[in-house]
Amino acid sequence: MSSDQRFQQAAEEMGYSFDGEIKVGGNYLPLVRHEQQIYISGQIPRVGDSVVVTGRVGEQVTLEQAQLGARISVMRALALLQRSLGSLESIKGILRIGVYVQCSMDFTRQSEVADAASDLLVSVLGENGAHTRTSVGVYQLPKNASVEVELIAVARA
Amino acid sequence: MSSDQRFQQAAEEMGYSFDGEIKVGGNYLPLVRHEQQIYISGQIPRVGDSVVVTGRVGEQVTLEQAQLGARISVMRALALLQRSLGSLESIKGILRIGVYVQCSMDFTRQSEVADAASDLLVSVLGENGAHTRTSVGVYQLPKNASVEVELIAVARA
Amino acid sequence: MSSDQRFQQAAEEMGYSFDGEIKVGGNYLPLVRHEQQIYISGQIPRVGDSVVVTGRVGEQVTLEQAQLGARISVMRALALLQRSLGSLESIKGILRIGVYVQCSMDFTRQSEVADAASDLLVSVLGENGAHTRTSVGVYQLPKNASVEVELIAVARA
Repeated sequence: MSSDQRFQQAAEEMGYSFDGEIKVGGNYLPLVRHEQQIYISGQIPRVGDSVVVTGRVGEQVTLEQAQLGARISVMRALALLQRSLGSLESIKGILRIGVYVQCSMDFTRQSEVADAASDLLVSVLGENGAHTRTSVGVYQLPKNASVEVELIAVARA
Repeated sequence: MSSDQRFQQAAEEMGYSFDGEIKVGGNYLPLVRHEQQIYISGQIPRVGDSVVVTGRVGEQVTLEQAQLGARISVMRALALLQRSLGSLESIKGILRIGVYVQCSMDFTRQSEVADAASDLLVSVLGENGAHTRTSVGVYQLPKNASVEVELIAVARA
Repeated sequence: MSSDQRFQQAAEEMGYSFDGEIKVGGNYLPLVRHEQQIYISGQIPRVGDSVVVTGRVGEQVTLEQAQLGARISVMRALALLQRSLGSLESIKGILRIGVYVQCSMDFTRQSEVADAASDLLVSVLGENGAHTRTSVGVYQLPKNASVEVELIAVARA
């Protein structure tokens, strides 16, 4: 199976479609490329016009819900890469993901939220999905999102 | 009008001068270049020796004040790039900005704070100012700053 | 003295060994290289299996303890680079460090925590350790760590 097929399968398993427009809300771009490096703007778990995982993880939001939010954010990033490159097979590697978790004061399982993002990247991209990672717990996120994920990919030459 | 003229005009409209030294407070650099990529250290809204926008956005600080803080931070980053490159016309693009907002627990308009940074970059640099962006709400910032902005630029070859 | 000797000396002065395995807890890598750029995953002050500096800086944790946490995090990053490159002498530069401090609501000395990381880098790597920096105060960190440090290095061609 190709990365694109695994991406489609992951979308179906999640029950969400990432075929629509991936909007950004301001005077910036979802994606900028310099040579082989492709920067993706911070993605929140938005599907269409609504953010589907909101609230503070460890209080209103469970670890499992936060992990879903991380997966949706990664799927959006992958959808952007797929449209830009034509195919996810053109991704050579992922340099870094940043995972920001809106959490309660004593929630210390940010890594486990980020694991959902990491597992999905490796599941869709195979060995090309291996990456470095920084995960932190923040005080708030745009639109009360529970999770935000940013990413730097490397395209094949 | 050149980017440098638009930068000067923006400074005059804000009523601040960015001609003085842009200090850093520790054993690090304001700017590091590798090939065409130029990293800028996180900038807070400091003018001369004082941080002019401090406090928690959504409590002591309004959205409009935070947006001013974001603009001052970006002007500092542009001033650093201008000195290093000789002219802002030597900027080919902006890969990413990171916008950190010291906010109240329920302030969810980080994107609107960041919009002020994004709009200023595009206003000064034109199409070369297009960029990716990540904005998050943090618990505190150095010197009680309301906003911190970091940036990666690409110089012309 | 070489960078590797200075690294060894710093480890001895801190009373910690960084010879063991530097583990990551999930489906990601401690280090990814693209051309000369090397990304290091966010490091917390873990020695062996335990995180040795935990808790909220400004409340349970002093500035001095947080600085120790920043130093341990940097030593882990350097240990990873040393193993990957064979020697720290192969580091040409450091592009950026990100320093995340789990702090109290009114702790505003994030820069002074980060200074410990900056000073150590310059002390071990000499002029090749000069870097840009972003430091912020976050709400929580994985495993209740007081500090997390991420880093991008440049290897000699």
